[in-house]
Amino acid sequence: MSAGCYPQNLDYNVTGGKLNCGMSVVDSVEILNGRKLTDDEYFKAALLGWGVEFLQAYYFVSDDMTDQSITRRGQPCWYRVEAVNLLAINDAYLLEGSNYYLLKKHFRSEPYYVYLLDVFHDTTFQTDIGQLIDLITAPEDNIDLSKFSLAKHQKIVIFKTAYYSFYLPALAMYMCGIPHSSTNDPYELAQKILVPLGEYFQAQDDFLDFAAPPEVLGKVGTDIIDNKCSWCVNTALAIMMPAQRKAAEARVKELYEEIGIRERYAEYEEGAYKRIIGLIETIPTEGADVGAGDVKLKREVFKVFLDKIYKGHK
Amino acid sequence: MSAGCYPQNLDYNVTGGKLNCGMSVVDSVEILNGRKLTDDEYFKAALLGWGVEFLQAYYFVSDDMTDQSITRRGQPCWYRVEAVNLLAINDAYLLEGSNYYLLKKHFRSEPYYVYLLDVFHDTTFQTDIGQLIDLITAPEDNIDLSKFSLAKHQKIVIFKTAYYSFYLPALAMYMCGIPHSSTNDPYELAQKILVPLGEYFQAQDDFLDFAAPPEVLGKVGTDIIDNKCSWCVNTALAIMMPAQRKAAEARVKELYEEIGIRERYAEYEEGAYKRIIGLIETIPTEGADVGAGDVKLKREVFKVFLDKIYKGHK
Repeated sequence: MSAGCYPQNLDYNVTGGKLNCGMSVVDSVEILNGRKLTDDEYFKAALLGWGVEFLQAYYFVSDDMTDQSITRRGQPCWYRVEAVNLLAINDAYLLEGSNYYLLKKHFRSEPYYVYLLDVFHDTTFQTDIGQLIDLITAPEDNIDLSKFSLAKHQKIVIFKTAYYSFYLPALAMYMCGIPHSSTNDPYELAQKILVPLGEYFQAQDDFLDFAAPPEVLGKVGTDIIDNKCSWCVNTALAIMMPAQRKAAEARVKELYEEIGIRERYAEYEEGAYKRIIGLIETIPTEGADVGAGDVKLKREVFKVFLDKIYKGHK
Repeated sequence: MSAGCYPQNLDYNVTGGKLNCGMSVVDSVEILNGRKLTDDEYFKAALLGWGVEFLQAYYFVSDDMTDQSITRRGQPCWYRVEAVNLLAINDAYLLEGSNYYLLKKHFRSEPYYVYLLDVFHDTTFQTDIGQLIDLITAPEDNIDLSKFSLAKHQKIVIFKTAYYSFYLPALAMYMCGIPHSSTNDPYELAQKILVPLGEYFQAQDDFLDFAAPPEVLGKVGTDIIDNKCSWCVNTALAIMMPAQRKAAEARVKELYEEIGIRERYAEYEEGAYKRIIGLIETIPTEGADVGAGDVKLKREVFKVFLDKIYKGHK
């Protein structure tokens, strides 16, 4: 099998990750149903999970080209593989198309099929918009710190990451047959919780890139060198004087410590955690009136997500 | 407005073409309904037409990067515009996403909404597969004529062009409410006609790249120099001896004349025309039993397509 073939495209780009996003779909379906899944349910939930992984691969392949990255998951980025190069763009298209192919093959006759398509389309478009704002705000070769701000950072994170990583569990809700409702729509409620959760997740990710030792992070953090528009630099910029802004990498780290970024992050984290817990508690408990179908939206789905993140680096 | 912004992405890449594909959706809706369209119908048909143009722009932007092309529609390719470069990949994604955004906004409550999504997904995936076969068969920097054949050429054309340019009128059929049917499905019938029509269109395009004078073609044909896996080279290869295969551009043209490619094309064209007319005549005339709804599939839709092509270069 030579590079550039479809099977190698799938093997190289879709597998090899931790499958967190994909597994979260399966976990959510299990929690919402409140029981072990039948083989058919597991198959379908796993397919949706793989769909999320296909979408992720689609972005990895293209983002690596755009950022001219060198490695991904410990191997050369796909576009750097011999005989692939610029064919990587079409390979990314094929990864996206494969998801829709599988959805049609296995879900076409389900009443929620069209909702699945809408979720994937919405998520894709939001992510593309986030990527555009990110690329325009922080081109790696032309840094203009005056374009950075916590507000803009938040916007990038919401569009690029929050919808992407966390709106996707909506797939599980549709699969479980949770219906839309004109009052207390469970999907609106889920989104209201999951988007801040995604924001928090990204802030944590940014903080750990700076603060976690390489043996914990699994790599050497490069956000500072890469001029990433991260939570850390935006928090620092919001506090620092203009004269401080020219510092080089070592100086940036010192500055982070000087402004007590660890304490600030701990404060941010506690606040975020409490805010999200508060949102989760707006979900009516069992028996209440969110979701008119047999399967109700459950607090536990979101608590599992939150705890995964909150305890992730303790 | 600076390069790399979304509005400029739309203006630069979606407009400026001849809008043939897009207009064909509007024309088809008009023919199928057999009357002038209401404002709302025209709006919707035009939206679908623009959707096709968005999809086309999506492929132009990425194909130009992959092929490292210089110009498109008389201006620099989008990826060659300053401040765009590699951001063009994300811009292509946004063009695709814009179509699904518009479809959801304007068609979400229509009973045929999900069919529109399926048509766009199917067409996109088929085109991606065609592009992959094309790129693997005929990489521009590494020509291996032993990989060329008329059979492979036909496969590329069907996947890359025929579905793309011609399956899309199915959008018009769905919009007109033509239902699927388990016997004599009008969509299967349409596809059976439109795919050969697309093949013929591409063979004509290839032939004209060689045979039409620049003032008629609107550009100087470059298929030979670009090592394109075209109808001409494949027809020639099917006839020529191995020793003849090393010829340079001028010699290739001579060879084409030597083997009487003009006569062969005329033969091919007559045959294709008759075959397609035959296929069109399998559509029952008014009152017959294809399409159980109010709007029936009509021979005229296809005749208009065929005549546009057949008379296109006379």
